[in-house]
Amino acid sequence: MIRLQVSLPASTYPILVAEGLLQNQSLWQELTQQRPFCIVTDDQVAPLYLGLLCKTLSSKVKDHIVIPAGEKHKNINTVTMILTQWTERYFPRDGLIIALGGGVVGDTVGFAAAVYQRGLDFIQVPTTTLAMLDSSVGGKTAVNLGMAKNNVGAFHQPKAVLIDLVTLCSLNEREYAAGLAEAIKHSLIADADFFAWLVRERQQIAERNLKVLAELIQRSCAIKIKIVEMDERENHLRMLLNFGHTFGHAIEAYNHYQDFKHGEAVAIGMMCALAWSVEQGYLADASHLETTRLLLEAFNLPTRIPEHYEAKKLLDLMQHDKKKREGLLNLVVLQKLGQAVIVKENDLTALEQFLGRQI
Amino acid sequence: MIRLQVSLPASTYPILVAEGLLQNQSLWQELTQQRPFCIVTDDQVAPLYLGLLCKTLSSKVKDHIVIPAGEKHKNINTVTMILTQWTERYFPRDGLIIALGGGVVGDTVGFAAAVYQRGLDFIQVPTTTLAMLDSSVGGKTAVNLGMAKNNVGAFHQPKAVLIDLVTLCSLNEREYAAGLAEAIKHSLIADADFFAWLVRERQQIAERNLKVLAELIQRSCAIKIKIVEMDERENHLRMLLNFGHTFGHAIEAYNHYQDFKHGEAVAIGMMCALAWSVEQGYLADASHLETTRLLLEAFNLPTRIPEHYEAKKLLDLMQHDKKKREGLLNLVVLQKLGQAVIVKENDLTALEQFLGRQI
Repeated sequence: MIRLQVSLPASTYPILVAEGLLQNQSLWQELTQQRPFCIVTDDQVAPLYLGLLCKTLSSKVKDHIVIPAGEKHKNINTVTMILTQWTERYFPRDGLIIALGGGVVGDTVGFAAAVYQRGLDFIQVPTTTLAMLDSSVGGKTAVNLGMAKNNVGAFHQPKAVLIDLVTLCSLNEREYAAGLAEAIKHSLIADADFFAWLVRERQQIAERNLKVLAELIQRSCAIKIKIVEMDERENHLRMLLNFGHTFGHAIEAYNHYQDFKHGEAVAIGMMCALAWSVEQGYLADASHLETTRLLLEAFNLPTRIPEHYEAKKLLDLMQHDKKKREGLLNLVVLQKLGQAVIVKENDLTALEQFLGRQI
Repeated sequence: MIRLQVSLPASTYPILVAEGLLQNQSLWQELTQQRPFCIVTDDQVAPLYLGLLCKTLSSKVKDHIVIPAGEKHKNINTVTMILTQWTERYFPRDGLIIALGGGVVGDTVGFAAAVYQRGLDFIQVPTTTLAMLDSSVGGKTAVNLGMAKNNVGAFHQPKAVLIDLVTLCSLNEREYAAGLAEAIKHSLIADADFFAWLVRERQQIAERNLKVLAELIQRSCAIKIKIVEMDERENHLRMLLNFGHTFGHAIEAYNHYQDFKHGEAVAIGMMCALAWSVEQGYLADASHLETTRLLLEAFNLPTRIPEHYEAKKLLDLMQHDKKKREGLLNLVVLQKLGQAVIVKENDLTALEQFLGRQI
């Protein structure tokens, strides 16, 4: 079993990575102790893994809630539904919540846990590539408000993150690949060796070799942990994790999240951020652009903004992104492979022209 | 101007007490700097003080939101309405929220600020006795979920608390008096001298002598600050502030918050907690019971559970109070004047019989 640790001022917790964690009774006993618990999952994950986890936790009350799957249910209504169920069941403040599922489940349930009686302990059990590599680690929880993505949320660290590699096998191709974009992002901003490793192992990764994926998750999470430990509340450094995301958020919002999954939009967004880094002279070596494109393509991830998108509208969407501060647009750019920096852009005309060329 | 300070690991902030703070331009300039801000108040307070505060802040955009007044609007719908308005106005993460009003405004707006983009800075400007003495200090924010009081919330400390004594003059008798129960509570659990002072000055307090009230607020807040500084997240010590509240919550919930204001229910609840302390042998000197009753009566606060209430139903409501942990009922009892302790009660039969005798 791979064991990583997140060490923050107010909490320290483990990230455990292995095959078969959902069935590891002794581990779950240690985690839950004699506490009341509630598993929250969605109606896509429930048929696959809820029964298994309930069986592993057999000595306890099999309390669970199933929410509807999909980004469109990541909203305040779903949070209120969860909170109402806990309230009606008199779920106690010293109980433990288990969030079983992908990024939507983790973000939504984590936020519900953050605000129920001002904070319940919870465990993240991510079942998608994206959730394992990104959203389950670092304590960001949130739901969308209308079209405003992750606009309502809380920093609420889990008590543990349990990554059962077996769950990766049940993902469809598109969902599996989308999450890999975050690992590539982590390598680009912080670890050139890891980037080279990803390029080398791309075939094994595409074929879901679980041994290789264990190493991928370990290396990718280690990067995120290091950044989160230095800046839990995203005052500055943590914004580096937004590499490709300011472009990506605009791209996924463009057609109301219908065209791309988050990871796919981030893949295109990273290509934009790399091209901008080269064009603006932040990044000298333009070859990284093509290597990254090849890597993304190895996982069938998109790398270009669709032809019918309009630069002006994309720029508007970028400006409304909540990462904007002090009226300027913050962008994360690459200085070299494995090293990113946050810059403030105020030449929006140049940016719009640039976007036009990326389409 | 009286200046108190709250010092917590993650934040330090001042509590300022004086007459005319709403008109103090230089103070507000110092607080808001050049940041975008939004005043949120309710439709009872708005006609009295919103114009005044807008005038004081004249150099800025007069951005404000008015929510409906009253406990029944302290819910997720109102929070969602506020969040939606901020979202539609693209209110930035580095903006500043000003919560102008009583406990409902402070709790609701504080919670909205806590979760908008994972946390906005906010200033509490309490305009009721209750909010000044209790809810605006200490960082607890929350709304009700159905009948479950404060069941959804966050710990979110304000950047400052501004107490303009003048606002006390616009309160009706009942609202003015209700909040005083919290000052009496603070004296009972932590400061026998302050209790004696309250008894001595009760006439001046009842007549709203602002000089005397300034001292009352200072001494009362100082007690709460000390406890919050030792236990911000209510792991143990902060529960002392629930003295009278486990009874009080059951009393106010009994008829769906129609019969009593929160402070009134706490007044009765404190009498119950005192009587229980004496009966169970925690408190030797029974004379405090009658002195407290006289003090509460000086402010026309109720001291007895209404005759038509039923002990069994009250006990049920007490057990559902969220302060219950590990299946036992936590109660705060007095050991002597100015010294309280948390005890676990498991003899619910004795408690029900006791409640019967308090009615």
